[in-house]
Amino acid sequence: MNYTFSDRVSNLKPSAIREIFKYAADPQVISLSAGNPSPEAFPVKAISEISQKIFKENPIAALQYSVTEGYAPLRSHLKEYMKEKHNIGAAFDDLIVTSGAQQVMDLAAKSLCNEGDTVICEAPSFIGSLNSFRSYNAKLCGVPMDSDGINIEKLENALQTKKNVRFMYLIPNFQNPSGITMSLEKRKAVYELAKKYGVLIIEDNPYGDLRYSGEYIPTIKSMDTEGLVIYVGSFSKVLSPGIRVGWCVAPQQIISKMVVCKQGQDVHTNIWSQMVAYEFMTKYDFDGHITFLQNLYRKKADLMMNLLDEHLAPQVTYNRINGGLFIMCQLPNNINMTDFCKQAVLRKVCVVPGNAFLTDESQPCQLFRVNFSTPTDEQLIKGVEILGKLAKEMC
Amino acid sequence: MNYTFSDRVSNLKPSAIREIFKYAADPQVISLSAGNPSPEAFPVKAISEISQKIFKENPIAALQYSVTEGYAPLRSHLKEYMKEKHNIGAAFDDLIVTSGAQQVMDLAAKSLCNEGDTVICEAPSFIGSLNSFRSYNAKLCGVPMDSDGINIEKLENALQTKKNVRFMYLIPNFQNPSGITMSLEKRKAVYELAKKYGVLIIEDNPYGDLRYSGEYIPTIKSMDTEGLVIYVGSFSKVLSPGIRVGWCVAPQQIISKMVVCKQGQDVHTNIWSQMVAYEFMTKYDFDGHITFLQNLYRKKADLMMNLLDEHLAPQVTYNRINGGLFIMCQLPNNINMTDFCKQAVLRKVCVVPGNAFLTDESQPCQLFRVNFSTPTDEQLIKGVEILGKLAKEMC
Repeated sequence: MNYTFSDRVSNLKPSAIREIFKYAADPQVISLSAGNPSPEAFPVKAISEISQKIFKENPIAALQYSVTEGYAPLRSHLKEYMKEKHNIGAAFDDLIVTSGAQQVMDLAAKSLCNEGDTVICEAPSFIGSLNSFRSYNAKLCGVPMDSDGINIEKLENALQTKKNVRFMYLIPNFQNPSGITMSLEKRKAVYELAKKYGVLIIEDNPYGDLRYSGEYIPTIKSMDTEGLVIYVGSFSKVLSPGIRVGWCVAPQQIISKMVVCKQGQDVHTNIWSQMVAYEFMTKYDFDGHITFLQNLYRKKADLMMNLLDEHLAPQVTYNRINGGLFIMCQLPNNINMTDFCKQAVLRKVCVVPGNAFLTDESQPCQLFRVNFSTPTDEQLIKGVEILGKLAKEMC
Repeated sequence: MNYTFSDRVSNLKPSAIREIFKYAADPQVISLSAGNPSPEAFPVKAISEISQKIFKENPIAALQYSVTEGYAPLRSHLKEYMKEKHNIGAAFDDLIVTSGAQQVMDLAAKSLCNEGDTVICEAPSFIGSLNSFRSYNAKLCGVPMDSDGINIEKLENALQTKKNVRFMYLIPNFQNPSGITMSLEKRKAVYELAKKYGVLIIEDNPYGDLRYSGEYIPTIKSMDTEGLVIYVGSFSKVLSPGIRVGWCVAPQQIISKMVVCKQGQDVHTNIWSQMVAYEFMTKYDFDGHITFLQNLYRKKADLMMNLLDEHLAPQVTYNRINGGLFIMCQLPNNINMTDFCKQAVLRKVCVVPGNAFLTDESQPCQLFRVNFSTPTDEQLIKGVEILGKLAKEMC
C-alpha cells in the first residue's frame, strides 16, 4: 500500500548525523561524531542511591500518573535555581519541565508557527532543533556567524525581509556545532532587535554550565524585561541525557500553550527521572558535580585542540573553544569536504560533515564537526592522527 | 505583551478533566473522576529490584543517549510478544517504543493529517486522544456507539460524506469512557470499511489485558492483511503510567515517519523505564501480574456495579462492563447533567461530565463517567451513596 503523509512531514528525513551513526556503531570505528557525555560523566552511585530511596520511601508517586507541568518540587526548585544562578524568571514568566530540551523545540514550533512561517537560526546550527522546526513546515533562514556570534547586520536584514518571522533560535554558549560563544554586546544587540521587530527569541543553553575558561556571560533571558525570550535548559549534559529531562522558562501565556500541547504529546515527563533530578540537585553536591565535569572536559578539550594543532594545522583551521563539547574545523578549499568525511569513515574515523547543520544542505561547505567528550584519550590521539594524514594526502 | 499563537493551537484548551482534577486534589473529595491504576496495582518490589540491578550492571546504557526507535531488547521482545499473544505483526509491519501511548496519537496525527483533514472517532471517546488530533487542526467526526461498539451504518455514512478522512480512532476493548467492547462481527465490519474506503484505523488498546469476564476477542490488527491498522499498546495500566512507555505496531513506512517525528519531539523515550519494562516482562511473571490485576479490578468493578444497582437504579442506568477501568452512567432526562456533576462536587464527590468526551462539548448529554480503580472500597461505598441521594433529590 502507498501511504499519504501530511505536507509537514512528507519531506522530513532522518538527521544526516543518524546516518553517520550507523558507521559509528562499528566498534572498530573511532567516533568523533557523537555529542554524548563521557561515560565518566555520570554520577552513577548517586543516581543508584536516589533510585533506591524513591522506591523505598515514595514508590507510588514515582509510578502513578502525574501533572503535565512537571513534578512540583523539581519545578519550584528549578524556578529558584534559575533566578539565583542566572537572574532568570520575571513576574510574567513560568516554567515547564519537559522530556528533554528537544521537546521544547517541538512545543515552541507547534505553538507559535503556522506552516510557512519563518524561523531564523544561526548558520550552522543544531540539526535536532532545525528538524523540529521543519516538522511544522516552518521556513528556516540561516544567518551566518562571526567569531563572537551571529552577524547582527545580516540578522537585522533577515528580520526586515523575511515574512512572518516567529522566533530566532540561538545557542549563545559554546554553540553546537561551531563552538562559538556570543559576546555580551551581541546578546544585548540581539535582544534590542527582538524588541524592535517584536520577534521572540528561543535561547537554547544546554552547554552553559560546561565553561572551561573565560568569564561567565549573562544570558539573553536575564535581560528580558518585555517577555520576549523562551529560555531552554537541560539535564542532558550535566546529569544524564538518557533520563530525558529539560525545562523551559518563558512568559506564562506561552508556557500555558506548551502545557496543553505537552498533554496531548506525552501527558507528562517520566516521573522517576524528575525525582532523580530533584534529589540530585538538592541533596547532593550539584555544583561540585558541574565543577568535576568542567575539569573532565577541559582536559579532553585541551588534548583535542593540541592534537588538532599538531596534526591538522596549518591546512585545517578551527575556532578555539572555552566550553561545550564540539569543535568546528574548516578544510582548505582544495579538499572536498564530503570526500574528506567519506575517506575518514573508510579509515575508521567518523566526523560530521558541516552541511548537515545548514538550513540548506546543498550549500557549499568546508566545515566538519568533531567531538571530544565521548571518545577515550587514546581514541582521540589515534583519530586525529588519521585525520591529519588524510588531510595531508588530499591537499 | 500579546502573543500570537499558531492556528492549530489557538483554540486548544486544557482538558475538561484536568479542571475537575483541581477539585479532586482536595483530600476531602472522593474522586471517581480519575483513570489512575490502583495504588495496589504497582509491582513496587520488582521495579525496585530491577532498578538496582540496572545501576549495578548496566548504568551507562541507562543514562546515555539511546536510539529513537526504542531500547533494542524491549523492541524485539514486544514484537515477539505481540505476535504470540495477539497474532499482531505482519511482514510489512514494524514497531516503535513511545513515551506512553499518548505519543502515538500525536505522532500519527502529525504524520497523517493536514490541517482540516477529518478524523473519525467513537462518540464519546478518550479526550486525551481527541485533543492530540485537535492540536493538528484535524476535524473530528464522532460516530455514535451501540452496546456492541460503533454504529456501522453511521460509520459508513461518515466515510462517504466527510472530506479527507485520514483515519478512524477506535478503542475496541472496554472503551474509555463508555466501557463498551466492540463485538467480533463489528471488528470485521470496521476492517472491511477501512479496506473499502482506503482509510487507516488506529486501534488503541490500553485496557485489553484488563478483562474480568467474557471471552477474548481478536484485535482488528490481527485481521490486517492490507497494512491499514496502526495498533497502540501501553504499559500504563499493566505496569505503571508514571514510567510513560507505550508502543505502536504499524506498517514500516508509517513507523519510519513516526521515528523521524519522534526524533524531533523527545529524541527517545527515557531509557531506564524501557529497561524496567523489558526486565519485568522477561525476568518476572508478567502474565501472573496481569492475572493479579484482573482479580484486583474485577472485585472493585463488581463492588461498583453492585453499589450503582443499589443506590442509583432505576433512575440512573449504566452499561455493565467486562473489563477496563470505567463505567458510563446515564441520567434520566429530568436531571440536568451539568448541575448534577456540580452538585456532586459540592458534596465532595467528583465524576466526569460526559460531554467532555464528545467532539462537540455543547451537544446535549445525559452521561457521566465513574472510575473504580483509584478510590478505596470505603470511598466507593461512600461516594456512590452520596451520588444516589443526590440523584433522588434532583429527580
